Amino acid sequence: MRAVSCADAKLSVVELPDPTPAQGQLVLGVLRCGICGSDLHAREHCDELAEVMVELDYGQFMRRDRPTVMGHEFVGEVRERGRGVRKEFREGAQVAVFPLQRVAGEVHPTGLSPLAPGGYAELVLAEQSLSFVVPNGLAPEVAVLTEPMAVALHAVNRGEVSKKDVAFVLGCGPVGLAVICWLKARGVRTIVASDLSPGRRALATTCGAHVVVDPTTESPYTSASSKFMTRAPDLLDLAVDSMDRLRRVPGWRHVFRAAEAAGVATPSGPVVFECVGVPGMIESVVSQAPLAARVVVVGVCMGGDSFRPSMAINKELDLRFVLCYTPLEFRDALHALADGKVDASALVTGTVGLDGVAAAYDALGDPERHAKILVDPASAVTTPG
Amino acid sequence: MRAVSCADAKLSVVELPDPTPAQGQLVLGVLRCGICGSDLHAREHCDELAEVMVELDYGQFMRRDRPTVMGHEFVGEVRERGRGVRKEFREGAQVAVFPLQRVAGEVHPTGLSPLAPGGYAELVLAEQSLSFVVPNGLAPEVAVLTEPMAVALHAVNRGEVSKKDVAFVLGCGPVGLAVICWLKARGVRTIVASDLSPGRRALATTCGAHVVVDPTTESPYTSASSKFMTRAPDLLDLAVDSMDRLRRVPGWRHVFRAAEAAGVATPSGPVVFECVGVPGMIESVVSQAPLAARVVVVGVCMGGDSFRPSMAINKELDLRFVLCYTPLEFRDALHALADGKVDASALVTGTVGLDGVAAAYDALGDPERHAKILVDPASAVTTPG
Repeated sequence: MRAVSCADAKLSVVELPDPTPAQGQLVLGVLRCGICGSDLHAREHCDELAEVMVELDYGQFMRRDRPTVMGHEFVGEVRERGRGVRKEFREGAQVAVFPLQRVAGEVHPTGLSPLAPGGYAELVLAEQSLSFVVPNGLAPEVAVLTEPMAVALHAVNRGEVSKKDVAFVLGCGPVGLAVICWLKARGVRTIVASDLSPGRRALATTCGAHVVVDPTTESPYTSASSKFMTRAPDLLDLAVDSMDRLRRVPGWRHVFRAAEAAGVATPSGPVVFECVGVPGMIESVVSQAPLAARVVVVGVCMGGDSFRPSMAINKELDLRFVLCYTPLEFRDALHALADGKVDASALVTGTVGLDGVAAAYDALGDPERHAKILVDPASAVTTPG
Repeated sequence: MRAVSCADAKLSVVELPDPTPAQGQLVLGVLRCGICGSDLHAREHCDELAEVMVELDYGQFMRRDRPTVMGHEFVGEVRERGRGVRKEFREGAQVAVFPLQRVAGEVHPTGLSPLAPGGYAELVLAEQSLSFVVPNGLAPEVAVLTEPMAVALHAVNRGEVSKKDVAFVLGCGPVGLAVICWLKARGVRTIVASDLSPGRRALATTCGAHVVVDPTTESPYTSASSKFMTRAPDLLDLAVDSMDRLRRVPGWRHVFRAAEAAGVATPSGPVVFECVGVPGMIESVVSQAPLAARVVVVGVCMGGDSFRPSMAINKELDLRFVLCYTPLEFRDALHALADGKVDASALVTGTVGLDGVAAAYDALGDPERHAKILVDPASAVTTPG
């Protein structure tokens, strides 16, 4: 089969043997595979990522000197079935896949391990137990968004966002945009998006952001609403005032309980999605975010990063770190796309064939031009436009 | 009145004018005041703390060169009533106080602001709206623990600990010990405590820890139970296996929902209470804690601190930072003490008069000898023993 191999940070089209399915595995003909921001990152920094993975015993992660076929956001049609595969995965069935596979008894991340080649290829292996038949005749160019939408759904779930919350999305790359799509689908009343790039801010508006901000000229936190407490005297006043006010109500002890449950006595802050992932972002969020904010950290910052715990303590912040998603969230994302409950079409800005993957990686370096580029192995397109 | 003033990190007994109550305020005769770990810290590092407070507009925080009467953990009896004070606060009534007060229209932290003298004194001001009558004839030497127990209750609430969780308490100073008392009172099945000091470990056992660990010789995480995933392959296997297992059950879609709700599909980690607060502790927790742990950061680390966000992301950790407590939690702590629902008596290791406060600060530097020392302004004791 033809595939795109990455070695020493160079991407090249190579000929590899076709994969063979083990028990419970499927061989898929790749219909679409998305290029993920973490693929761009892994091309250059995989050794650093691998060191973290070694500490966690994550099988064998990609290394600069070990050729790897990347691509973990893929949808394909069943070409070959291993032993014990269930009927629903008949030949020709289209499936979206939670990208893990067993290789020689170990679990590997498909498309991020040299032993588990990914979706920048004509064929790819999938575990039936982590495969989901694409419902409702959903087109592959939409179904392929299941994986990034699952990442964003997990982030939104980790943020415990409700409709009445104000959500701040810092960074409008594909993950930030996908988060905005879910917030919009959930009916969140105020979605504030922040990005340095005018092009990305325009995409954020298309995805559903109510307010977009250039962080070099304006703070996202003050632009949205002045009802958030970013400074302490309000919090102290609230404590004093809420006690006085509530005590005037007959049966105030029960009212207290109800008030605390409703977040009056324990003011609940807004939710901040950190989707940038560069050194200094965490300190920046910690020092600028409103009190009691739940900060969902989705952006991956490599190496050590410094921040002031005392500021996080004084603001009673939560930093909730997010890696991926559960199989259920993956399935929920697929079905929400198929049922039209979430619209992620604005994310896709181009499509290339295998011969265009290297050019697509380069093009994704410019946020003005592209957000998410898809790979279609059947296409002959070599430039993403 | 006599009071202990702190200036240039020196504590000395001084004579100050008696306080006068404004509308809605009480003057209390101090019965007991606890010496808090943050008082020891503030004596030396108040300028650094004050810089953070300035950024947050926290009124006027203590400075090295501004004499301050510390003490924010106090219980007293009503001596004088301002206008508009309710009947329940009759003269002689004993009250525990949420330590905030209005001074010239601004809210100040009592005992941590030069304008709001605290409880290391014969008399102290209190807002009636943040005062709670001590119930059930609870002795002042127990009621005085309301404030530290409220801090710990808030930390336990922020950790969303349930009985079946395993809780790790890192650092068995007064706050760590108070957290252990609440975990015990809540019936948490496995409480693992870690401290360098044998004396503190013995106190942790008295407070209710099931396992105590010297972190220089043993990891608290492996000592307690091997059921936690600290490394990734288990998590990946779980995802694969849970899908296979659950799909075999009729009506698996509903089972999926139930399983996710029950934490099968989304493995919920244990709760870690970081009660040490020295540089490097956050990275230490991030690199050693089990996957998906909720880390409640109670220990105050000043200055910048570095950690690896990529490790926190790969483990999907929560860092939940904790400052103090709500008025409701303060009240709950008081009533739990009065109803015998929580036993915090092991925390107190000594009592001194005002003339013994300086010696008590020194004595608290040795974790083998002391945990919490109380100040009783009526006592003539000058050494905590």
